[in-house]
Amino acid sequence: MLLASFLAALPASTEEPYRQTLVSVERNVHVTDWDVDGRTVTPDCPFNWSVKTRRLKGGKQDGVDVILVNNGATTIVVVPTRGMGIWEVVHGDVRLGWQSPVNEIVHPGHVNLSARGGIGWLEGFGEWLCRCGLESNGAPGIDTIIDNTGAESQVQLNLHGRIAYEPAQEVELVVERKPPYRITVRGTVNERMMFGPNLQLMTEISTEAGSASLQVDDTVTNRGGLPSEFQLLYHVNFGPPILGAGSQLAAPFQLVRPFNAHAEASILQFSEYGPPEAGFVEQVYCVRLFGDEDDNTKVVLHNADRDKGAAMSFSLKTLPYLTIWKNTSTLKDGYVTGIEPGTNYPNNRSHERKAGRVPKLKPDEKYQTSIKIDILANGKEVAAATDDVTKIQAGRQERIETLSNDGLSGADE
Amino acid sequence: MLLASFLAALPASTEEPYRQTLVSVERNVHVTDWDVDGRTVTPDCPFNWSVKTRRLKGGKQDGVDVILVNNGATTIVVVPTRGMGIWEVVHGDVRLGWQSPVNEIVHPGHVNLSARGGIGWLEGFGEWLCRCGLESNGAPGIDTIIDNTGAESQVQLNLHGRIAYEPAQEVELVVERKPPYRITVRGTVNERMMFGPNLQLMTEISTEAGSASLQVDDTVTNRGGLPSEFQLLYHVNFGPPILGAGSQLAAPFQLVRPFNAHAEASILQFSEYGPPEAGFVEQVYCVRLFGDEDDNTKVVLHNADRDKGAAMSFSLKTLPYLTIWKNTSTLKDGYVTGIEPGTNYPNNRSHERKAGRVPKLKPDEKYQTSIKIDILANGKEVAAATDDVTKIQAGRQERIETLSNDGLSGADE
Amino acid sequence: MLLASFLAALPASTEEPYRQTLVSVERNVHVTDWDVDGRTVTPDCPFNWSVKTRRLKGGKQDGVDVILVNNGATTIVVVPTRGMGIWEVVHGDVRLGWQSPVNEIVHPGHVNLSARGGIGWLEGFGEWLCRCGLESNGAPGIDTIIDNTGAESQVQLNLHGRIAYEPAQEVELVVERKPPYRITVRGTVNERMMFGPNLQLMTEISTEAGSASLQVDDTVTNRGGLPSEFQLLYHVNFGPPILGAGSQLAAPFQLVRPFNAHAEASILQFSEYGPPEAGFVEQVYCVRLFGDEDDNTKVVLHNADRDKGAAMSFSLKTLPYLTIWKNTSTLKDGYVTGIEPGTNYPNNRSHERKAGRVPKLKPDEKYQTSIKIDILANGKEVAAATDDVTKIQAGRQERIETLSNDGLSGADE
Repeated sequence: MLLASFLAALPASTEEPYRQTLVSVERNVHVTDWDVDGRTVTPDCPFNWSVKTRRLKGGKQDGVDVILVNNGATTIVVVPTRGMGIWEVVHGDVRLGWQSPVNEIVHPGHVNLSARGGIGWLEGFGEWLCRCGLESNGAPGIDTIIDNTGAESQVQLNLHGRIAYEPAQEVELVVERKPPYRITVRGTVNERMMFGPNLQLMTEISTEAGSASLQVDDTVTNRGGLPSEFQLLYHVNFGPPILGAGSQLAAPFQLVRPFNAHAEASILQFSEYGPPEAGFVEQVYCVRLFGDEDDNTKVVLHNADRDKGAAMSFSLKTLPYLTIWKNTSTLKDGYVTGIEPGTNYPNNRSHERKAGRVPKLKPDEKYQTSIKIDILANGKEVAAATDDVTKIQAGRQERIETLSNDGLSGADE
Repeated sequence: MLLASFLAALPASTEEPYRQTLVSVERNVHVTDWDVDGRTVTPDCPFNWSVKTRRLKGGKQDGVDVILVNNGATTIVVVPTRGMGIWEVVHGDVRLGWQSPVNEIVHPGHVNLSARGGIGWLEGFGEWLCRCGLESNGAPGIDTIIDNTGAESQVQLNLHGRIAYEPAQEVELVVERKPPYRITVRGTVNERMMFGPNLQLMTEISTEAGSASLQVDDTVTNRGGLPSEFQLLYHVNFGPPILGAGSQLAAPFQLVRPFNAHAEASILQFSEYGPPEAGFVEQVYCVRLFGDEDDNTKVVLHNADRDKGAAMSFSLKTLPYLTIWKNTSTLKDGYVTGIEPGTNYPNNRSHERKAGRVPKLKPDEKYQTSIKIDILANGKEVAAATDDVTKIQAGRQERIETLSNDGLSGADE
Repeated sequence: MLLASFLAALPASTEEPYRQTLVSVERNVHVTDWDVDGRTVTPDCPFNWSVKTRRLKGGKQDGVDVILVNNGATTIVVVPTRGMGIWEVVHGDVRLGWQSPVNEIVHPGHVNLSARGGIGWLEGFGEWLCRCGLESNGAPGIDTIIDNTGAESQVQLNLHGRIAYEPAQEVELVVERKPPYRITVRGTVNERMMFGPNLQLMTEISTEAGSASLQVDDTVTNRGGLPSEFQLLYHVNFGPPILGAGSQLAAPFQLVRPFNAHAEASILQFSEYGPPEAGFVEQVYCVRLFGDEDDNTKVVLHNADRDKGAAMSFSLKTLPYLTIWKNTSTLKDGYVTGIEPGTNYPNNRSHERKAGRVPKLKPDEKYQTSIKIDILANGKEVAAATDDVTKIQAGRQERIETLSNDGLSGADE
């Protein structure tokens, strides 16, 4: 390993990017407790970036691999063992992330997704960004499908699916040797079984040296021999310092609907946040956004002082539905909001299928999404980002609706 | 690690105890295959104690950490990976423990607590002392609670809860440098999830150098932001040589009730044990004990010859209910009795709640228990311990009751 | 480890076989990333055999141990972590195995056997040979048993049981030092729990140096103190190059019944295979074979050109029932056939019990099976093997039956 990484680290005469395999199930490669940095790979780069791999030990995190990507200004903690989720991002005094009651990075082997009627997923929930999906991404419960014998079969879906608990099979580090010295961690995660879905996520989590931004570019491919449904939702979770009393969510809102009667009661404050509150019951809103002429949109969450925030930019073509999860409970119980772009809303898949919100992929067909996240570290950056939102809104009116007759949001769109 | 432990092992000029972190999730420390002993840490101590950490490999025990505490006379095997349970205690020819059909220390990752209608817990059951709890500790089945949305929700509880399958997050060794040279293994285990209980167990398992005793001091803390129920029961299990035909349980019995009709049929022999018997069906008794003026009590299990035994001393203020589990099946199937002090009886929590036996903790509130275990290695020690029991009984009469109308014991107390 | 294996490798003066413990839970031995070969152990052997142990890293295979047995002509991949299953066998351009959608050797800790109504087993299914059993081996669903309290109890059985997901406790390598230099990997796997079955599998997977054959000799022992049911079925799975369009199964068929109406529709082609076909729904047949005068029988699967195949020989005394699983789906979805000798058919155990196909073992009673597998690498070998089949058939007629009234095969035998 040592020699290999030394050789790999030598400046190449060509402009070929630097590449290092970190995990390969196919070739039985696993590079951990390993470091690389900009001094050796990109001596001309003004930012001393580094990438470290670590295997955690002890507790429920025993055996979890983490990749610490520091671009010289921002540190991103990627977790291959948990579906290439991102545990947190730190840039100066701004942290993207939250404080879950589960304050360790739980190994999938300790979690039974079926537990407690299908909500075992919550026993390891703590990431800043985790994906829900791929077979299904919503509420637990029964869905009826056609099984491998051709018969109708009832499947007990678990909350938010399996992808966040599937270890990555192949992980590679790629660093461009010329400006902007983009650092990319590429990972492949498979969600599959015999007689079941065979869905593959290929993600590229990347950042430019010295920047306060990162990008998550995902490709979902149906690796099976038959057409297959899939669902994908980004559960992106913010706590302090971005979330606090008086924080606001700015976005080009087109349509807002409450998830249930409880959320409906507070719908006029759906984009505003209160302080931590013991016994606060979560409020969920189903949202359609306006986009610009290319269907791109932007969502900004910022604090009350408007000097710290985060912006998420994505395309409504592939992520048309946004879910807002407000859970301003105590700091101990998880003071957090989820800003969740997805292919659908997180109702049980049976409901989403009726509403036409379960995309289907032919064999080998791909579905590509991209989310850019900018950390907003001062008032100027927050103002610029909310200006972008205003431009996309372009004076168009937001519409607030009440619940549909079945008490579930969005079924009749 | 080597240098650190060498420095830590130097005799300090002060009387500060020796301390060594063994596991720390917070600091990503994990010290295994590591030894320390009295010669270096307490050169003046007449007993050559040692502490060793080992990571087991192969089989279903792969990845399990054990801590072997030898106080110079007694060896205690602590299992951080399984909720700081104690696998066995050995003192000369007396062993506290039993021979479970499951004769390896099973890693939690191999156990599905929900399996077989919620009795998966039994697939790894083999400890001398394991805790049942903390969210619930009794029979599997449905309980109705209020969930995070404020709605009534049905929870499928598993047999004996989760704490025995939760790896410890923080573990530390502390050794006093002066008589009686107390050796303490301190561990923190968390049972928690998002939108669920957040209960923390901090245990101190300690023993004095050269002694035949150990102590288990536990503190349960509600780390959540809202009041929370909890349950705790010590499943302390004895097989040969203490258990055998003619063994007896001596305790200041106040009230004894059968758990079910099967146990009721043998209630007059509830404190006596027969030989291994193929097809023996377990008998369970729900017991209230008398205490002394401070509500302290003592329970003694000894063999037919009254020359080997174990005594457990604890306070009825925090462990008011005692369950006796008689399972004198064949040696192959588990010839064992459980002497189980607890906050309640191991009925399903729904039953215990109705009977007022589910304590509740406010945020940050603590509940402290302490059990002292003395190994009785000869006739004199057994006699002294049973004398203590007689003194506590103080001539007060034991009462034997029949089943309540619902066929479950103890509901109407 | 190094010294021990060096000494062990010295040519002994006696003809004692070479022995090396690879895993021992009892003695906490675990020998991985270790190699031995014929040059040092059997210098006179004309075939340079080798045995390697490897621990896989990364992905869902992290922590899985494999043993690579190369007899000089044939390589056998044994997986102790998955119940001593055999992942694949390679001899020249013939491979015994198939391409499951699950293309990594999944660690049991990543699989919840109870998932999806009891078919979680399929999330790690990919072996050439895996055992189904031991408590039960068939379809998932409810079975009613008598539990440890003497009461009737309903058990939710999972598809194909647990043994394929139980890590071996003890594994040993044994090599004869004289011709035919038999190489044996011996492993012990336990399926047990408190208040449940205590069944032990001892397997010897062996091959002679330079040969194109291997043998699987299994002994199941009831280690419990009471009589115990058990079931055992060998799920032996073939894909290309042996399986292809025009492949055939030759065997001394006595009786063939379809598993369900879907299989019945194609029953006249039950022993012939088509090409990969998208959306093919599996067809299952329940088969009785004729044996020779000693009740030995042989089954041969060969390709359309009759120049590649595999023969399985076993005794009908212990493996009286054969199940044929035809799943000629696309290569992506698993183009495979299972040739499955067993103690029964893979219906739910409740059904098999009614049909008298659930054997029972007294305490310590053993049940021994043996399967010899020959790789057929050319036309001559295929012809010789099918000749053997013809001899056993001895002109006796095969009988094809239709479904019994309950729509399940074989209930009324």
